[in-house]
Amino acid sequence: MRWALVGPGAVGGLYSGLLAAAGEEVHALYRSDAAAVRAGGVHLRSPLHDGPVPVVVHDSVATIPPVDAVLVATKTTANAELAPVLGPLVGDDTIVVVLQNGLGVEAEVAAAAGGRGRVVGGLCFVCANRTGPGRTAHLDYGDLTLAAHTADGAPGGRTTAVEAVAAAFAPTGIAVHVDDDLVAARWRKLVWNIAFNGLSVVLDAATDALLADPSVRSLVVELMGEVAAGAAVVGRPVPSGFAEQMLSMTEVMVPYATSMKLDHDAGRPLEVGAIYDAPVAAAAATGCAMPRTAAVAAQLHFLDRRTRATP
Amino acid sequence: MRWALVGPGAVGGLYSGLLAAAGEEVHALYRSDAAAVRAGGVHLRSPLHDGPVPVVVHDSVATIPPVDAVLVATKTTANAELAPVLGPLVGDDTIVVVLQNGLGVEAEVAAAAGGRGRVVGGLCFVCANRTGPGRTAHLDYGDLTLAAHTADGAPGGRTTAVEAVAAAFAPTGIAVHVDDDLVAARWRKLVWNIAFNGLSVVLDAATDALLADPSVRSLVVELMGEVAAGAAVVGRPVPSGFAEQMLSMTEVMVPYATSMKLDHDAGRPLEVGAIYDAPVAAAAATGCAMPRTAAVAAQLHFLDRRTRATP
Repeated sequence: MRWALVGPGAVGGLYSGLLAAAGEEVHALYRSDAAAVRAGGVHLRSPLHDGPVPVVVHDSVATIPPVDAVLVATKTTANAELAPVLGPLVGDDTIVVVLQNGLGVEAEVAAAAGGRGRVVGGLCFVCANRTGPGRTAHLDYGDLTLAAHTADGAPGGRTTAVEAVAAAFAPTGIAVHVDDDLVAARWRKLVWNIAFNGLSVVLDAATDALLADPSVRSLVVELMGEVAAGAAVVGRPVPSGFAEQMLSMTEVMVPYATSMKLDHDAGRPLEVGAIYDAPVAAAAATGCAMPRTAAVAAQLHFLDRRTRATP
Repeated sequence: MRWALVGPGAVGGLYSGLLAAAGEEVHALYRSDAAAVRAGGVHLRSPLHDGPVPVVVHDSVATIPPVDAVLVATKTTANAELAPVLGPLVGDDTIVVVLQNGLGVEAEVAAAAGGRGRVVGGLCFVCANRTGPGRTAHLDYGDLTLAAHTADGAPGGRTTAVEAVAAAFAPTGIAVHVDDDLVAARWRKLVWNIAFNGLSVVLDAATDALLADPSVRSLVVELMGEVAAGAAVVGRPVPSGFAEQMLSMTEVMVPYATSMKLDHDAGRPLEVGAIYDAPVAAAAATGCAMPRTAAVAAQLHFLDRRTRATP
């Protein structure tokens, strides 16, 4: 298959690089970095592939040939600006894989693609960093959950688009899971993201420090409970014991600065809308309040605005 | 009257200094500062009195003569350590004025005084700083609300102890209000303290910055709503429109770093127990949750523990 990558950060660099290393044809759209990446090449440092990968570098969407699939790995905060990029890339049959965090992001990307394309949600459970132009370090994990987006949010089942993406990733070494129900998968992922992303930013702490404090550990459990309650009222209950599993998993993880903390430390916009506001609004629409989640979201908006107001 | 001051920080320095300036006999217990204060004297810079005040400096409770009243203006975090100080000072008729923030502090001080003394709550609406050993700057406000403590929390009415304290403060220029119901007065004061103290620490911001942000402004309103709901379930509803008044008052205030933020910036312990945990527990005991308040409290405990763990 021929792929385009939009958003060559840590996540996009990793998954597109592994596809290229496995023999897929990958065209990546770089911006200001394009010249540096052309000169230095695209490199991956991963347990699954260590070295250069044959990615074709573009500095404009105009030079990318017709593709079978597009990986969208931009930050969700830029979803409103994707239309000029996705317009030329996405036809009716083009697969669009949304490698983003949060709730409702596939609908935003589908809208930016003008309603064309077969949109697939891609949920990445991964620890990866961009270490330089065209350079990605894959530190840990990597599982990819795929599920079809549907306009009304109903479970999409195993579509041919999902199967094609799963088949392409099969030789990369990445563990791929196909889920019938994208919205349920998104809510499950929020259990961890809502509990840890925001507090890691507000309290400037990694996951181990958050869990070592008895008060914050309780707050983490309560935040997970609010997400589980929200998921239940929208008809996508998380499996029983799931929050406890996430907690145990995090306790044995190496201390981990969340993606939102990495964004904050680097002065990048925070994905508060997709990760916090969207689920709070979805739960509120059915009469379920998520007060602790909303409180953390308000704090994140404050910090995000202050960062952007600081020259 | 003859007074002792325990806790010569900003609040204690101000109110005891104004009493001394008005002709009351004041004995202040200093610790490591005693020699410096004896040498330099006790000074007040206030619109109500600007200059030295005739306070007698002690470095041990043993040298303080029998007094009619004790002003307790220590941080609430040290209430458990007050017994050795209050034991020798407080007899059955001694008035004990608790110039502290939070809920339930009079009961803690009464316990430290061995159940002796006539305990009066003193709620200070004041902006003051300790500017050096024995030196206090009174920046703004200063109103003092007095109310009698009772063992069962029932409204104590206008006791002779409350009247005596009010009479002593009358010539100082401080506006004194007597309230029949200490617990109701404490809950009213929490409306402001819970809304602003914690967020000013967690977000490292003054009141003007907090209110300028639409997300945090909403959170402030919601926190005030939780306090009002807590006050209502314990049978001490705040007057209708009170939270709105607090908000309007804060909007026209000069930008104000809260007392908790001053404590945090100076590495001092945070009064999370008295200002946050006690009201949350009191409301929870009647089945009323204060989830946003509890979330901020958890964050404050984390930051407080980290400060104390940092050498």
